[in-house]
Amino acid sequence: MRILGIDPGTAIMGHGLIEQKGNQLKPLKYGSWRTSPRTPMPERLLSLYRELEFFIKENKPDVLAVEELFFNRNTSTAISVGQARGIVLLAGAQAGLAVYEYTPLQVKQAVVGYGKADKQQVQHMVKALLGLQEIPKPDDTADALAIAICHAHSAHLLKRMEGTL
Amino acid sequence: MRILGIDPGTAIMGHGLIEQKGNQLKPLKYGSWRTSPRTPMPERLLSLYRELEFFIKENKPDVLAVEELFFNRNTSTAISVGQARGIVLLAGAQAGLAVYEYTPLQVKQAVVGYGKADKQQVQHMVKALLGLQEIPKPDDTADALAIAICHAHSAHLLKRMEGTL
Repeated sequence: MRILGIDPGTAIMGHGLIEQKGNQLKPLKYGSWRTSPRTPMPERLLSLYRELEFFIKENKPDVLAVEELFFNRNTSTAISVGQARGIVLLAGAQAGLAVYEYTPLQVKQAVVGYGKADKQQVQHMVKALLGLQEIPKPDDTADALAIAICHAHSAHLLKRMEGTL
Repeated sequence: MRILGIDPGTAIMGHGLIEQKGNQLKPLKYGSWRTSPRTPMPERLLSLYRELEFFIKENKPDVLAVEELFFNRNTSTAISVGQARGIVLLAGAQAGLAVYEYTPLQVKQAVVGYGKADKQQVQHMVKALLGLQEIPKPDDTADALAIAICHAHSAHLLKRMEGTL
């Protein structure tokens, strides 16, 4: 099974594609797409959407896993991340992929086995579990791979995205 | 000039297309698209995106006007509206439309001439300015028409959407 994890954002969108065969996890492709804050938002979203659409067509993931976000901070950040998330969910639905969402807590538990793990611990485990030489950069790429690993490890916790949000 | 106003939401998305000729404003098509809360979010977004994409192709607006939102309320609402807004901006960019945004204050000032106008006053002016028999229902439809009128009245206030959000 090919799992595509996405860490949504309008400035940087991380993506991580892994293959799961039995207990084996293999990293296939990962990185991040960037847009400039000087570009109008509609064009930034279009650019990210096209990157993602092309990536899905080229690499044929079976499922899409996205982080479910909660913010205590300002709501304009939430709207901005929501916009990025909207086009990711749309691209998944357009491609007919099953879309799953995981909370940051679920990602940490599934990757590190400990819900209060910090970012460094998560990144260390991403590197170890995927047999990488280095921690993927930027953080958004590592986060996207962590979400993909979470899906691979969470078959029993599966929560198909509901319409309740 | 044909102006399409959109009031973004995932449960109800209002749309209002008007034509501006000199001082004349003519309502062309307006209404709202709905999705069920029981449908998974990616499919809801896909359904709204397809409605909007089809509407743009059929009716060929020149510009898209969207309300700029601020929330004091909970951030999960902001993420949800952000998701809807993301696919609206994407559809505009895909169709090559110029996308403009207006704050609720700008909409009230442009439609009623008074920034503290209430919803009823705005709806009353939408009906009067477009020569409608009745106030369009639901509120989302009237709001979308108000945003379109705001763009028509705001040539001197034009604020092309910036990439700063």
